[in-house]
Amino acid sequence: MELAIIGLGRMGADMTRRLMHGGHAPVVTDLSPDPVAELVEEGARGASSIAEAIAQLAAPRVVWCMVPAGDPTEQVIVQALAAMSAGDVLVDGANSNWEDSRRRAALAEEAGVLWLDAGVSGGVWGLEQGYNLMVGGHDDAFAIAKPILETLAPTGGLVHVGPPGSGHFVKMIHNGIEYGLLQAYGEGFEALATYPHHQLDLPAIARLWTNGSVVRSWLLELLADALHDDPRLDELKGYVNDSGMGRWTVDYAVAHAVPMPAVTAALYARFASRETDSFANRAIAALRNRFGGHKTKKA
Amino acid sequence: MELAIIGLGRMGADMTRRLMHGGHAPVVTDLSPDPVAELVEEGARGASSIAEAIAQLAAPRVVWCMVPAGDPTEQVIVQALAAMSAGDVLVDGANSNWEDSRRRAALAEEAGVLWLDAGVSGGVWGLEQGYNLMVGGHDDAFAIAKPILETLAPTGGLVHVGPPGSGHFVKMIHNGIEYGLLQAYGEGFEALATYPHHQLDLPAIARLWTNGSVVRSWLLELLADALHDDPRLDELKGYVNDSGMGRWTVDYAVAHAVPMPAVTAALYARFASRETDSFANRAIAALRNRFGGHKTKKA
Repeated sequence: MELAIIGLGRMGADMTRRLMHGGHAPVVTDLSPDPVAELVEEGARGASSIAEAIAQLAAPRVVWCMVPAGDPTEQVIVQALAAMSAGDVLVDGANSNWEDSRRRAALAEEAGVLWLDAGVSGGVWGLEQGYNLMVGGHDDAFAIAKPILETLAPTGGLVHVGPPGSGHFVKMIHNGIEYGLLQAYGEGFEALATYPHHQLDLPAIARLWTNGSVVRSWLLELLADALHDDPRLDELKGYVNDSGMGRWTVDYAVAHAVPMPAVTAALYARFASRETDSFANRAIAALRNRFGGHKTKKA
Repeated sequence: MELAIIGLGRMGADMTRRLMHGGHAPVVTDLSPDPVAELVEEGARGASSIAEAIAQLAAPRVVWCMVPAGDPTEQVIVQALAAMSAGDVLVDGANSNWEDSRRRAALAEEAGVLWLDAGVSGGVWGLEQGYNLMVGGHDDAFAIAKPILETLAPTGGLVHVGPPGSGHFVKMIHNGIEYGLLQAYGEGFEALATYPHHQLDLPAIARLWTNGSVVRSWLLELLADALHDDPRLDELKGYVNDSGMGRWTVDYAVAHAVPMPAVTAALYARFASRETDSFANRAIAALRNRFGGHKTKKA
């Protein structure tokens, strides 16, 4: 079926490709003309603006926003809504904050536009393996967009989880869990790397565990690949960014009094990974010196 | 090939079965006669003592100990060594402490017995899917026991990780990682269960995530099964035991100054799960009352 896709970053472009392979007819647009031209070459229709992309569709029109969460998504949604009509379906596929999605769903509803928030997991592997989709919104919106959602997802990889906002809520918790899983693997492999009696073969152990152990997972397979290429990860710096979902998970835990010590520890470990010389550690060194005469290191 | 298996609990009995299916000829013994009789009926040879089991084998004899870690393993190993000769191979397949295994390997070496410590993962699914094996010990011991190890493991599920003790060390870290993974899933699903705007379908979300999401894993598949049977896990009490590996992981982290905040948080969360009314919380309530007049609840 027809749809407009706004935003052709890595995710938006690959989702467009998967939809075309599945027989759909996307109209694509982006702030930059290059990815539009690239996808037009691959068979999509192109447009130079959001309004122009939407104008090419027949009603009920499905518009999929796939731009970064926050201001970019806010602006795209406001512009898209201005070009849409009652009965159209607006899908936000970004990693948006679920409370923003509830607010935007209400905005859409005022214009008679049907809303979906689609949490999308699968990363760079989604084009080939399908995108895991956790979708919030009303039944009528889900029914209209279903052929698109079913093409994007692998078998069993699509659930309509609840009303507007719940798709992005579930995706937020998914990513919060991901923080904890990454941290657990990271800590464990650091411990393995310190074994005092033998230099353990980390790539071999990671690969071993993918074959029948209790800790086997897709993330462990990726870690085995990474260790195969660089056995002690010497080519990387231990600097880990975060994209917001972990913070929102902990914000939610705090607001709703849900104890999440491991996920919170994982988030804080990322913050610490980005400090070269933390103020807290300088304060602790200063205090140990003041009360106990313990030696310090000069900056 | 022939071997003696000492200890026919769930793991030892199922490993015996997998070895018989693979064409090996085990002699089995246990403190209780019942599992011995059961496995004899299935085709194993039985023995009423460790010495008798070992006496039935031709040299070089392979003896596999599969009794609980700690005192039971210590006693079995001392008895087995007394009945073994130079050139035989003694395998400890329990979840033993890796430092105990280093000490026991030295004991074996004094008697000329070759030592292997086999970390075994796979739980109740191992009979069917194979046991993931991380094996420590010298090359000559590994070479003699290899046909047995290859039958027990699934394809790609066997690695000789290093010298004596390293097999149980790697298994300890495997289980430490497992603590972190379980805690991350537990925290995430608790957060999902608290979503204020909709009763989310936890079994559907768990199953969804097993199909192409970043957090997919074997543990998540088990959680999806458990939630399918009991969507809010109302039939269980949130009381979680620990079997030692998590404590040893944190002991190791402390001894070697490896920061493991998430795994440690997971271990402490298990301790907290077993307290009905913690002293720390009573102390905190008392202090908040004393300094701020905050209300308390009477016991």
